Amino acid sequence: MQKTIAALAQEELDRKTKPQGALGNLEKIAVRLAALQNTLSPSLKQKRIMVFAGSHGVAKRGVSAYPEEVTAQMVMNFLRGGAAINVLARHGAIDLRIINAGVRGDCSNLDAPNFRNAPIRQGTRDFTVEPAMSETERDAALMLGKSEVERAKQEGFELLGIGEMGIANTTSAAALCAAVLSLAPEDVCGRGTGVDDEGLKRKIAAVRAGLNLHRAICKTPLAWLRAVGGLEIAAMTGAIFAAAEHRLPIVIDGFIATAAALVAIKENPDVAQVCFFGHCSAESGHREILQQINAEPILSLEMRLGEGTGAALAMHIIEAAAKLLCEMATFETARVSEKTPSKREESISREARTE
Amino acid sequence: MQKTIAALAQEELDRKTKPQGALGNLEKIAVRLAALQNTLSPSLKQKRIMVFAGSHGVAKRGVSAYPEEVTAQMVMNFLRGGAAINVLARHGAIDLRIINAGVRGDCSNLDAPNFRNAPIRQGTRDFTVEPAMSETERDAALMLGKSEVERAKQEGFELLGIGEMGIANTTSAAALCAAVLSLAPEDVCGRGTGVDDEGLKRKIAAVRAGLNLHRAICKTPLAWLRAVGGLEIAAMTGAIFAAAEHRLPIVIDGFIATAAALVAIKENPDVAQVCFFGHCSAESGHREILQQINAEPILSLEMRLGEGTGAALAMHIIEAAAKLLCEMATFETARVSEKTPSKREESISREARTE
Repeated sequence: MQKTIAALAQEELDRKTKPQGALGNLEKIAVRLAALQNTLSPSLKQKRIMVFAGSHGVAKRGVSAYPEEVTAQMVMNFLRGGAAINVLARHGAIDLRIINAGVRGDCSNLDAPNFRNAPIRQGTRDFTVEPAMSETERDAALMLGKSEVERAKQEGFELLGIGEMGIANTTSAAALCAAVLSLAPEDVCGRGTGVDDEGLKRKIAAVRAGLNLHRAICKTPLAWLRAVGGLEIAAMTGAIFAAAEHRLPIVIDGFIATAAALVAIKENPDVAQVCFFGHCSAESGHREILQQINAEPILSLEMRLGEGTGAALAMHIIEAAAKLLCEMATFETARVSEKTPSKREESISREARTE
Repeated sequence: MQKTIAALAQEELDRKTKPQGALGNLEKIAVRLAALQNTLSPSLKQKRIMVFAGSHGVAKRGVSAYPEEVTAQMVMNFLRGGAAINVLARHGAIDLRIINAGVRGDCSNLDAPNFRNAPIRQGTRDFTVEPAMSETERDAALMLGKSEVERAKQEGFELLGIGEMGIANTTSAAALCAAVLSLAPEDVCGRGTGVDDEGLKRKIAAVRAGLNLHRAICKTPLAWLRAVGGLEIAAMTGAIFAAAEHRLPIVIDGFIATAAALVAIKENPDVAQVCFFGHCSAESGHREILQQINAEPILSLEMRLGEGTGAALAMHIIEAAAKLLCEMATFETARVSEKTPSKREESISREARTE
């Protein structure tokens, strides 16, 4: 039977000048990259993070610590280069694209080479009283994300990342996770941008109302995405589907991006092959959700900002893993002595010789 | 009372376009860097990792999975650029220096601009039967590390890191940690480079023998460093003392570098201010030791290689923290609306207005 590229990559790592397995999670990442690119020399020369922005009808339920207009204001901030993701993208030599998937307010006057103004509608509807999106709107958002990945592929990007901006979108993401994983609203609702006790109660109530309202008609993760999701969340789900189609590694940012990945993975488990979970955020519920989908987050820095900030930092680690597989010397080429066989290994090899 | 730079740095972070505290551990790192450099614009332009190598007399007790000559062979590998730390240093644009603090074998024929051949002796003595070093040798190793930090400072390096190479040095580090923290040998002995069950038993026995032999005369961490430490470990301790003296941030690598830091911090708790713990390694006991000294490791990637590999990856995160403090826009400059006051905050501010 022919060995898989993954098995060959692990063998190659085992020949490198280090104890077997000593690079820990970096070895697992390198093996996955080799398998995705079908080579023992994975290359991640160009990296891009796509930040999708969208407004949320449920914001009017008082679920966020910030006023709704911050979504549009932060898009401006991204285009001017002053947000955390701008700093981290520059730091990591990561190309950054900002996509308006459905911000309330007019962004048509904004102009920047890395900005795409493609609002599907002016924010979602309030999911506590009606579905957040129509089917057509959800599908348009999925297509928007897909088209961004295809564009990135055409432009030669080898490592992608997704992040988001959208006041109240932890509420939407919490509803989505609770629905798809059958979790209690209390277990997936955190403080987001820092909502107070009263706001947290309103958030839990909104999630519960959404679940109760839509449960009868939602039979699939994609149906839930339509009912309680966000335009930027659906765009991220579409991006993940497309990344899987093209076998492009894609770094999932925090809680909200994980909700988008959850929908994609539950619809098609194969999608998980391309997903690298950048970090475990401080948002309560994130760790539990990651565990439920067997996702091992690369970083755990108590961040809870979104925007792709966790994905940006994780990209440095992912690149490092690829380079270790490509560039390290082997025991043979470096003339370094290998492990001393243990008594048991020695007796096995002696038996083999006498045979 | 005048505010400290740390307090001012946190206030500045709180003005940045993000929810307060949303950058998690990055904010703590940024505040520490600001305090160390006494500025709200910390700069980490040049980074250097120093890898100290040394051989260990206790290796003859069969405590490692690898033969002793690997220490010298790996020094060669470092100089040729084929080791994991070479790959990670190139990846992170980190200057790398290799220092022979006491490798058994002749390294005098090796020549490279980034290599310093300064062996204090040809490896330590076997600490299960006699002290690993004389006082003079220990002090020479401390001075070696100190001189490296002074050289780095003169050459303009603003962020330092330390790593090591030395077959059997997890045994030495385990003995040091057990002695200084009064832990049981079983709790600090891991499999190092991958020793088998029998080897692990020999390792625990060696640590116990060392503790029993030297306990009567060792009253301080520096005395234990002499009795059971390594030349490369003492050099790292000296480097940490010097970094503290010059207020230079220094990234501590894994289990063995942490043992060196433990000695420094227990001798002088102020030293902890400059220490950034790069990662929690997979070596059993490391997490416990980090907790005992209130060290929060930046990464946790199941690595267990040493060489400064964990420090190298953590440097990217530390730099990111500094840049976020320097480069992010504030709510005011970006014209982003601030947090909606909660009911309680509103009523407080109303009271304040009516007063």
